Order: sequence, then structure tokens, then C-alpha cells
Amino acid sequence: MTNQPTAHIPLDLRHGRVELTHGAGGRAMSQLIDGIFRRHLDNPLLAQGNDQACFTVPSGRLAMSTDGHVVSPLFFPGGDIGALAVHGTINDLAMGGARPLHLSAGFIIEEGFALAELDRIVASMAQAAEAAGVRVVTGDTKVVERGKGDGVFITTTGIGVVPEGIELSGERARPGDAIVLSGGIGEHGVAILAEREHLGFATTVHSDSAALHGLVATMLAAVPGLRCLRDPTRGGLAACLNELAHQSGVGMQIREAAIPVHPEVAAACELLGLDPLHIANEGKLVAICPRDRVTDLLAAMHAHPLGTGASQIGEVVEDALLLVQMETSFGGARVVDWLSGEQLPRIC
Amino acid sequence: MTNQPTAHIPLDLRHGRVELTHGAGGRAMSQLIDGIFRRHLDNPLLAQGNDQACFTVPSGRLAMSTDGHVVSPLFFPGGDIGALAVHGTINDLAMGGARPLHLSAGFIIEEGFALAELDRIVASMAQAAEAAGVRVVTGDTKVVERGKGDGVFITTTGIGVVPEGIELSGERARPGDAIVLSGGIGEHGVAILAEREHLGFATTVHSDSAALHGLVATMLAAVPGLRCLRDPTRGGLAACLNELAHQSGVGMQIREAAIPVHPEVAAACELLGLDPLHIANEGKLVAICPRDRVTDLLAAMHAHPLGTGASQIGEVVEDALLLVQMETSFGGARVVDWLSGEQLPRIC
Repeated sequence: MTNQPTAHIPLDLRHGRVELTHGAGGRAMSQLIDGIFRRHLDNPLLAQGNDQACFTVPSGRLAMSTDGHVVSPLFFPGGDIGALAVHGTINDLAMGGARPLHLSAGFIIEEGFALAELDRIVASMAQAAEAAGVRVVTGDTKVVERGKGDGVFITTTGIGVVPEGIELSGERARPGDAIVLSGGIGEHGVAILAEREHLGFATTVHSDSAALHGLVATMLAAVPGLRCLRDPTRGGLAACLNELAHQSGVGMQIREAAIPVHPEVAAACELLGLDPLHIANEGKLVAICPRDRVTDLLAAMHAHPLGTGASQIGEVVEDALLLVQMETSFGGARVVDWLSGEQLPRIC
Repeated sequence: MTNQPTAHIPLDLRHGRVELTHGAGGRAMSQLIDGIFRRHLDNPLLAQGNDQACFTVPSGRLAMSTDGHVVSPLFFPGGDIGALAVHGTINDLAMGGARPLHLSAGFIIEEGFALAELDRIVASMAQAAEAAGVRVVTGDTKVVERGKGDGVFITTTGIGVVPEGIELSGERARPGDAIVLSGGIGEHGVAILAEREHLGFATTVHSDSAALHGLVATMLAAVPGLRCLRDPTRGGLAACLNELAHQSGVGMQIREAAIPVHPEVAAACELLGLDPLHIANEGKLVAICPRDRVTDLLAAMHAHPLGTGASQIGEVVEDALLLVQMETSFGGARVVDWLSGEQLPRIC
């Protein structure tokens, strides 16, 4: 984002719309950057006004992660694409044990998008970043013609510092380890679906969109030897556990009765024929923990606002077939497969 | 990009198309990642298979930059969106004096996009990254419905190391400094336009898309005290000089006769009523250099393949109005303003 203090005509944030010239590198783009992006996201690094941000990092290990956000609708109960774009990338960093430092944000905006909505999204992004203690230090804006995009897409990339001694990775699960889930599943996906389909019955379900790095720091302080962390986003808990099983070359045995599902989420899923195990979450995590440390881990999680609903949902087992198997609430057993696709496109 | 080694059905790279399920976090996404992204971009960090890449960096200053790429058409003389997405972000890092280390890549793909084209784009990206000595260490794929995107958009983010003692920034230009341009302008924009509009006369013009960090390293070795570097992309040389003038609070005086323009570019611009000063470049840079070091700088640039056409095009001057003024080839004078917008949308 380049510093161009010659924006003479203020943006019409009430009635204005994004035009192709706003992405074209001239005065109009400068106005958009000053009037929306810099106004909300202002910080010393962004204010350097160069095409790159420069900053000092401690020596050691860094984590880097990127996520494109194409959620539809852009605003939903419990969040919006701006906050989601911050939380999503922070969480990908946190799952590597990293303390998030800085974010970049790339906007691809459709011609005709209301400036008022863009302003609301960037304000939400700024609020989410501030609450999480990170800064958006550099960015980019492109505009595509009407009908060649869909409102706004936001790709965020983050870097963070991985503390000494932390070794989290998806291939570290070992038979005997405990599988811990931080809280109820399916809320983000159901909130999006309810908003998209105007389902009145589900209006009390809010997205769980949240930044998990604080919870992760608490967990690592209590149990530095945690094996893996992963957030069950697209594909839900089912995809998350299958991924970990395949990376680590193990099986997973979980208990349906131990998996928290909000009653409204369960009702919505039953009505619509959806399985909460496959529905995306944006503020939950799965932890694989050495068995003898799980009591300490759960105690630490329960003491954090985002971990009050944490529970052990199963164990890692030996299994040459790398299956995720579930003991159902009725005492039966089934394989929890991952779907070929997602039940809900554009969920994040 | 998550490591999911269970992709049983190979992708049909010849006739297949991207479907919504390819972005949905399940088996199909895993196939797409294994069959295209990992196949071309393979490296130890990407192969970690987590949602973030972890690596060690030296202590000191880092640079971070992001750029969304929405160029249309996706393939053009001299390049494609894949190589451009690598070059664009490397160049934004290089303009801060940084040695590029790692890239992330976020893909937003329109449902129905041919897998064969995606494969070609990712292969080109891999080739450009390898040639530049950087790696794509983490990525993300989203798929949007037909008519909600336009083929593929790629947002790349890069981090790089800024060597000790290098202090490049847009506000450091001082009256008396020399303005140096690394070569002919307008080639990228004219190549895109020619391809888009099927202008046969311009078919010999190729995009100048190139990674400039090698040239920058050469320049900094010769003149560590360089003041500013910037690449004249969207908005062209005119926007670039106006930005620097405003950031530094100075004027710029340039000479039209000293600015190299390929005859085919000049011909295309004249026919179409375009000004080469406003046309985007993707492999050129502007350097602001202390006057007494410009001979050394030009000698170093001339010895590098991407700087053979370098020349001094003017001087930084005192000017309370912060104007960029040009002595025309006919001996007249005019103000080089930046446009409200760009003559060509979606040029990068």
C-alpha cells in the first residue's frame, strides 16, 4: 500500500461503489487505500508506505501460512469475511505453535461493490487484528469487472514465531495418545448455511469464528510436549482426524457421545441431512496429547474462555488401514470417512 | 496444503475441469493438491504437509509483501499469471532491498477451469520460483462457482531478508539525487493489450515480466547507499515517480529523450492513444541514487542482463508542489501527472 497523500476528493463511503479505477494504481486507488485501508488498519509498518513492510524478527523458527477467503454471504451471525480472514490465518499459524506476528491482506474486489460494505469489512478486520495483537503490515488491492468476482475475496498471509522446544506437526500422533477437542462442532457451517438459506430456525447459531493462539499458548505452557494441533475447518472434524491419521500412519478411535454439538446445530443437521462431523468450524481445535498429560491439558484448556467445552473424544490407535472409527451414541461402530467434497461450498 | 496420501483416482489432467469439490477440504482437494501443486512445487517445507510452513531465519530485518494477480488473459507473450505471481512478489521484496526467501500462494479458481491450464500455470510458477532461487512453502486453494470468478486469481506473499546496512525507502529521495531507470518501458502493458485485443501489429512485443532481485543485489553491492527503489507496475513510470515525489516531499525533473521505449511499444501507444509513461511494467525498476554514485551504479547495472538498458533519466529537485516535470523530446516541458485510473484494467 503506497503512501500517496494527494487524495483530494474524499470517498463517498455512504453511496459510493468500487470502480475499476480503484484498482488501477492511480489517484483513485490511493483514495481507496487512504480512505478505508489505512484509516482502519493504521500502524507504523503499514505507514512506511512502501510496497513491502520491513521489520526486525528474533532469530529462530518462523511459521508462515496463507488462506484465501471466499465465504458467502460476506456477513453472517457471529462474524464476517474480514474477521474470518484474520482468524483463519492466525489459527493456521497457531496450529504450528507459532505466536502470530504480522499479517498481509490481498483484496480482490468486484466492480460495483459498495464502499460502505468494504468499509465495514475492513473495520471488522482491524478490530479482529487488534484483539488478537497482530497487525496488517502490508496489503494489495485489485478490482475485477462486474461478474468476474463476487463482492470481495480476501487472501491473508501470516508469519509468526515458533518458541524454542515446540515441535507440533501432523505426523507426530502415536498410538495411545489422547485426542482432545476444544469445544462444540458445526457452528460456523450451520451459521453460514442458515444465513444463506434464510433458515429462521437456526438463527440462534452463531459462527464460532475466533483466534485460537491465546488458547494454544495456554495449552503449550501446560503441556510443551503436545504432539499435534489442527483446526477442523473445511471438511470438519472428520477430514481433520483423517488427515492426522494419514500423516502419522495411525488409526483414530473416537466416541460420538464425547463430541459436543450444540442442540441447535444438531437440530439443523438432522433436518437438512448433514453430518456435524463434516461441517466447518472456525474457532475450534483438535489436539493430540501424550496420554499421561491429558488431565493437565484439559485443566489448562478449561481455564481459557475458548476451551471451556474441551473434552477428550478418543484415542490414537494402531491401524494399518489408517481408519477413523467411531463408537456411536447407540453403542454401534462406524468408520468416519472424509467426504469427496464438502456439503457446503464457500464456507470460508 | 495438507498431506493426504489417499488420492486413489488420478486427476484427468487432459480433459478434467476444476469442480467445487476441489476446494472443499475432502478427497478431491487432496487429489488436486497432490496431482498439480505438490507435483510441481515440491520442496521439503511444502512437504511438511501442515497448514503452515516452519523454517529458521537469521536474526535481523525481514521484509514481507503481498500481491494479488488477476491478469487477463492468463497467458500472454512473455509470460503467464503463474510466472507473474512469482516475479511480482519477488520484485516488491527486492525493492526493499530484501533477498527473497519464501513465497506462499493462494489460488481462487472458478468452477469449470481446465485442469490442463491450471497445471500449465503451476508448472510455470514452479519454474519461475526455481529460476529465482525461492520456494513456494505453503498454499491454499479455494473454488468459487462458475460466474463468480474468472479462471484463476493468484495471491502470492513473500518474505525476504534485508541485509545489514541497507535502508531503502520511498521517502529518502533528496534534491540533487539521480533518477535511474533500468530499461525500456511499457512492454508488459502493450503485450497484454495486444493479446487481449488480438492486435497483430504488436505481436513482437513481449512482457518484460522478470525477477529483479539479482539486479538489485548487484546494484546494492556497487552502491550500498542507494536511497529508493521502486518498480513501475500499475500506473507505470508516471505513477511510480509521483509516488516517490510525494513520499519524499520533492519534485522530479526527467527528460523524455532519456527514457527508452521499444519502437513497437511506441508505435502501439501512438496508434491507440496511450502514453507509455502510464503503462505497466513487470521487470523494470526506478532507482534514486546519490548524484556522486550514479556512474558506479550504471556500470554495475549495465553488467547485469536485466540492466543493460539502464540510464539516468533525470534528477530529484526541490519543489514545494511535488511535481514530476518532463522536458519533452521537442524541447518543451510538461507536468507528468498520474492518472485517476489506469488505461488498462487487470494488467497484473
